[in-house]
Amino acid sequence: MSRHTLPEAVLVLVAIFGWLWPVQARTDKNKAPVSEDSQTCIGCHSQVTPGIVASWRRSMHAHVTPLQAMKKDEMHGGLTSRDVPVSMQGHVVGCAECHTLNPKAHSDTFEHNGFQVHVVVTPKDCATCHKKEVDQFENSVMAKAYVDLMGNPTYTKLVSSVNGMQHWDKGKLTQGTPKNATNEGACLQCHGTKVTVVGTSHRETDMGDMDFPKLTGWPNAGVGRINPDGSTGSCTACHTRHSFSVSEARSPEACERCHKGPDVPAYKVYTVSKHGALYKAHHHDWHMGELPWVAGRDFDAPTCATCHMSGVLDTQGKVLATRTHDVGSRLDTRIFGLPYSHPQPVVADTSRVKNKAGLYLITNLDGTPVKDAVIGRQERKKRRKRMQATCLACHSQSWVQGHFKNLDHMDNWADKMVKTGTTMIAHAWKTGVASPENPFDEYIEKLWVESWLFYANSVRFAAAMAGADYGVFAHGAWYLSRTITQIRDFLDILEQDRARHIGKVISH
Amino acid sequence: MSRHTLPEAVLVLVAIFGWLWPVQARTDKNKAPVSEDSQTCIGCHSQVTPGIVASWRRSMHAHVTPLQAMKKDEMHGGLTSRDVPVSMQGHVVGCAECHTLNPKAHSDTFEHNGFQVHVVVTPKDCATCHKKEVDQFENSVMAKAYVDLMGNPTYTKLVSSVNGMQHWDKGKLTQGTPKNATNEGACLQCHGTKVTVVGTSHRETDMGDMDFPKLTGWPNAGVGRINPDGSTGSCTACHTRHSFSVSEARSPEACERCHKGPDVPAYKVYTVSKHGALYKAHHHDWHMGELPWVAGRDFDAPTCATCHMSGVLDTQGKVLATRTHDVGSRLDTRIFGLPYSHPQPVVADTSRVKNKAGLYLITNLDGTPVKDAVIGRQERKKRRKRMQATCLACHSQSWVQGHFKNLDHMDNWADKMVKTGTTMIAHAWKTGVASPENPFDEYIEKLWVESWLFYANSVRFAAAMAGADYGVFAHGAWYLSRTITQIRDFLDILEQDRARHIGKVISH
Amino acid sequence: MSRHTLPEAVLVLVAIFGWLWPVQARTDKNKAPVSEDSQTCIGCHSQVTPGIVASWRRSMHAHVTPLQAMKKDEMHGGLTSRDVPVSMQGHVVGCAECHTLNPKAHSDTFEHNGFQVHVVVTPKDCATCHKKEVDQFENSVMAKAYVDLMGNPTYTKLVSSVNGMQHWDKGKLTQGTPKNATNEGACLQCHGTKVTVVGTSHRETDMGDMDFPKLTGWPNAGVGRINPDGSTGSCTACHTRHSFSVSEARSPEACERCHKGPDVPAYKVYTVSKHGALYKAHHHDWHMGELPWVAGRDFDAPTCATCHMSGVLDTQGKVLATRTHDVGSRLDTRIFGLPYSHPQPVVADTSRVKNKAGLYLITNLDGTPVKDAVIGRQERKKRRKRMQATCLACHSQSWVQGHFKNLDHMDNWADKMVKTGTTMIAHAWKTGVASPENPFDEYIEKLWVESWLFYANSVRFAAAMAGADYGVFAHGAWYLSRTITQIRDFLDILEQDRARHIGKVISH
Repeated sequence: MSRHTLPEAVLVLVAIFGWLWPVQARTDKNKAPVSEDSQTCIGCHSQVTPGIVASWRRSMHAHVTPLQAMKKDEMHGGLTSRDVPVSMQGHVVGCAECHTLNPKAHSDTFEHNGFQVHVVVTPKDCATCHKKEVDQFENSVMAKAYVDLMGNPTYTKLVSSVNGMQHWDKGKLTQGTPKNATNEGACLQCHGTKVTVVGTSHRETDMGDMDFPKLTGWPNAGVGRINPDGSTGSCTACHTRHSFSVSEARSPEACERCHKGPDVPAYKVYTVSKHGALYKAHHHDWHMGELPWVAGRDFDAPTCATCHMSGVLDTQGKVLATRTHDVGSRLDTRIFGLPYSHPQPVVADTSRVKNKAGLYLITNLDGTPVKDAVIGRQERKKRRKRMQATCLACHSQSWVQGHFKNLDHMDNWADKMVKTGTTMIAHAWKTGVASPENPFDEYIEKLWVESWLFYANSVRFAAAMAGADYGVFAHGAWYLSRTITQIRDFLDILEQDRARHIGKVISH
Repeated sequence: MSRHTLPEAVLVLVAIFGWLWPVQARTDKNKAPVSEDSQTCIGCHSQVTPGIVASWRRSMHAHVTPLQAMKKDEMHGGLTSRDVPVSMQGHVVGCAECHTLNPKAHSDTFEHNGFQVHVVVTPKDCATCHKKEVDQFENSVMAKAYVDLMGNPTYTKLVSSVNGMQHWDKGKLTQGTPKNATNEGACLQCHGTKVTVVGTSHRETDMGDMDFPKLTGWPNAGVGRINPDGSTGSCTACHTRHSFSVSEARSPEACERCHKGPDVPAYKVYTVSKHGALYKAHHHDWHMGELPWVAGRDFDAPTCATCHMSGVLDTQGKVLATRTHDVGSRLDTRIFGLPYSHPQPVVADTSRVKNKAGLYLITNLDGTPVKDAVIGRQERKKRRKRMQATCLACHSQSWVQGHFKNLDHMDNWADKMVKTGTTMIAHAWKTGVASPENPFDEYIEKLWVESWLFYANSVRFAAAMAGADYGVFAHGAWYLSRTITQIRDFLDILEQDRARHIGKVISH
Repeated sequence: MSRHTLPEAVLVLVAIFGWLWPVQARTDKNKAPVSEDSQTCIGCHSQVTPGIVASWRRSMHAHVTPLQAMKKDEMHGGLTSRDVPVSMQGHVVGCAECHTLNPKAHSDTFEHNGFQVHVVVTPKDCATCHKKEVDQFENSVMAKAYVDLMGNPTYTKLVSSVNGMQHWDKGKLTQGTPKNATNEGACLQCHGTKVTVVGTSHRETDMGDMDFPKLTGWPNAGVGRINPDGSTGSCTACHTRHSFSVSEARSPEACERCHKGPDVPAYKVYTVSKHGALYKAHHHDWHMGELPWVAGRDFDAPTCATCHMSGVLDTQGKVLATRTHDVGSRLDTRIFGLPYSHPQPVVADTSRVKNKAGLYLITNLDGTPVKDAVIGRQERKKRRKRMQATCLACHSQSWVQGHFKNLDHMDNWADKMVKTGTTMIAHAWKTGVASPENPFDEYIEKLWVESWLFYANSVRFAAAMAGADYGVFAHGAWYLSRTITQIRDFLDILEQDRARHIGKVISH
């Protein structure tokens, strides 16, 4: 053909490749520089544990260097540490970058093919780049999930009554102190374990003989985990390794893991809320990983993260909510009643707050909060306003006021019902048909626990998110009112049967 | 280059733009004319409530004018009102079109920047364009969800026993009449509230000082809501504002909101049915919003809507099912037993149907339906055939007959089991160990309620949709048979303990 | 225009059609040859049952001939029968190919428009092409789901206590033997029915008068179904007809159908596991139907199938797990306790294994397994290693060891707790306050059943998959410990009330 046709063919190809470009660009990203150390790790581990290597390859960590991320502002995914060590700035965040950080601080550090590697990457490690997130998290109730349970002398009685081995012999039921391993396999799955190095194990591997640290309380991804470097918490509780995905943490399923059971049915309530219905029907068209996250552009209805944690802009670029990793900072009331709802605690570690009855609970048996342990009216107002700012992106002021008025009413209603049950149990303790030594280990006490831990909480969570039947028949008001009549009837039987074994459990 | 190369470049561009066309077409749709009034609304509200504006922008309302929709037939999304006011025909359905309709009929109408706006858009408003849908809905049990509960003197006793505040004092348990606010936060979340204007509230806003109507029972999206314009129902119960999406309403998640609890576990049963398994595995490849909706082209397995409401064609264009918003019209039996299953009621409002025992229930205590309150044999046959027409799109006649034979058997089985429990409770009422004054407020009565409201219903729903364990261990036959033995044992204890408080609740 | 411009236009078109090619290729696939017989079927059935025809058209069966599939290796979707009848090799697998196979073996074969058609396609039919899959399946507990329940004299008492009709008359509660239809509508939904031909039914159809076989126990897709050709099992239990999709069977939702209830909460536990969270957040980007299935390329976290059944390669092409349809072959322990957990049975049919107490249970009342009925230490080690091979694709050796150590501990813990409850029930049987004739029909016995069938199982499943609250408050340790105190208290009441009816159910 004649020579002058060439430019036209080029035009065609340019047009065609224009179409291909986004794919090409994605491929280029994969070429962000990986450090030599991490390349060494990947050399073996792409064979030994190919799954996590593949998962990491798709992560933002594998595509962006700290230097690039430091140039962005927070809402666009910028790092909150502006002083990332220079030696780390120029390559992407690979295996070695995290697993060899602060080697001396980690009691689980071990020599591994010439590297000082540690097993458990902790919030303290993550703070190298994500300082603000870790600071906020460390001051939140999430980070205190271990100590708030295991450091509280009253709650450990609850733990014992659940995990302690029960024996029956000659008409007597006894209950032991639970082993660490049982607690780790039960409550501490969510609350987090205490991970401790207890020795070294020698293993033959495909790559030769090697030594590895032996850990107790491991594996565990509980949010309040006590780590071998002395830090608390686990970022992987929500950002599962090794993709550490923003979109995953924004999905309600990230929260589902620990917030689904009858004690804290937040996820279940969300699924039947209008927000949940919209999420389920449409979220595959939403942009769950977008930075910044824009209401009305990236999503039409909030997930758990949207209201409680995420930074959210409106379509005009106005900040509706500032990102936080302190989940309590937009909450004025703790509707998770123990046994009553109450204003949020002043500090996240409440393990030593004692009520008038001598129990380590933040509310008294009459429902009032323990003095000075909870935030005041001004702080509550401020936090509620912070929460409502997101609501107002879609709902009118009247709508929002009506919703919160209903929440306050149902919260109060549930508290009063709990008080009726508590009065009966206190009566049982007084007359001796039940023993307050461990307030959770007899059958009648367990009915009482269910009345507040399961049913009153379900009523309150349902009110907080318009959760339909979770307020009534699905572990809500129906079960709460039913359990109170059941306690009453059982109390009556017990009182007639004082002389018998019934209702007695011997703790030892 | 030489001049004659131009046409070839044009050819290239045409070819390329052919590819771009669908995107372009979508963009053009956005240019459908928005009325001046709605443009005024959007002027402020894209700043004040950007989320709902964005959500609306993606809706069919924002892209199609009534004039365009009137030209289509119903199966293709055509309007069922052919006499939409001429003034509304030429622009899309925006804010003003709905929120300023019939201003005089709405007691919640208020002056708002020169417009007569009302807060609560109602089925009566929607009927302007969607007349047939609203007519069908208004005659259905859905629209009667409020009155069928709150207008029924027997059910209000059930409501009181759930939501009424209980107090315990000196061994006596008393129960009060629930506040409206408690009912609104509990049962009426699904059944719908009575929305009433109780005054005006003055507010400072970013746009200046304004007055807004003060409403009780708001917010609420319950399906049987009583509205400020005197109409009943809420279209947003299934078509969440402000996208009012067809695909959302066709998703099982739209129904999940109110049909998931133990009293009406339809959604849970669906999830374990074969239909549910196919839906979950494949629905992202289905066309959930397509009009018309073609079995085998747009979906491979039905959702709730497919069988109960949707218009469905087969791939040859034959109508398998005609669209309806009267959810009862394809149902011959109400398997939701109160306490027994029964032929569908003749009219949707059954609040005043009284049985032989003087209770406002549609079945007698022996399981027979109240005379003349339920449809006859011929009508039942007709409705069952209507339902089976959709089944037959995939299943053979023998398959369908076998399935329904099993449904009838299990339905009958559950009814007989319920009768055993009911006989025991009637005995308790007769001997005085329980009081029939409120048949739902004592512990033994609550066990009885659970036997039919939770467990017999679960058995029946599981039979209706091949719902696996929901027929047995997941609140099915296991729990039904267990609860009957529990009632029997407890009855025995009560009879010995007549002289005591046990089993007594004092209503006041 | 000048002639020489033509080739350039061609170039443009070629480039454009290059883009179109994948779509075109898919269309070509539809042109794989359909047999004349199947074309005849489709001729009518695309009108009579268009849904399943459409569903089949999208299946692999409709696009690949056995000849093509025989050329592939197993991991790439190759057939495991290399001797498919020559007459079947050349066309795709349509209606006639399956529904007219082995006509003489099927008692449900009937003359249908000149064909000898049978209704129930069985594993024996599927084995024509998928021999290895069926052989493995037939030896698994899945295939024995019917006989292991209905052939076991102890379990049939459990079935009776659930499905038998209960009557109450003059203070006495009696319980009958359940009808087949009730069992079919309850337990056998999952376990599978016995499908039997009981006659012929004559029907007028749109295509003229026809005869069809009349079947009992039909429809049913239970995994252990007894078929009219004498075979056992149902492939559609997991590969729903008529797409028989690989991706569906790999989805956790395929298992959800039967593994979600409180007795076997595997699916629920999975949803709150880290694996489940990753699946929910990301699976729409995964390749669920890919053959072979490559960890780290096609998926980032396992589904049920990945660990228990699927063939899995790593990204280097190394086989991590060999595909199996014997779900027990990677399991060393049966954590589904009856009432205790135990090493996997030696053979899948355990219906005649009797314990020391004379009950047809594979464990004794003290928790030890019945001698010689379970696999030994070596086999257990081998199976556990097989399972762990998949874990090791992502997790380190220490991680995996820690996880299984915790599983063993919790398994053992749950067994010991069950023993406490069992000791109390054995005491009740001994003193006569309960009757061991049917060990499952009295209220106190039902509490005991729940302690192991629901709560101990939930603890064990949660430990197996890191299932968070399913180990504690969501039917886990909390309920297990609570139920033991409840049994103790109720036992005490019963002992005082020996003379009364309480606790007695009369079986007949």
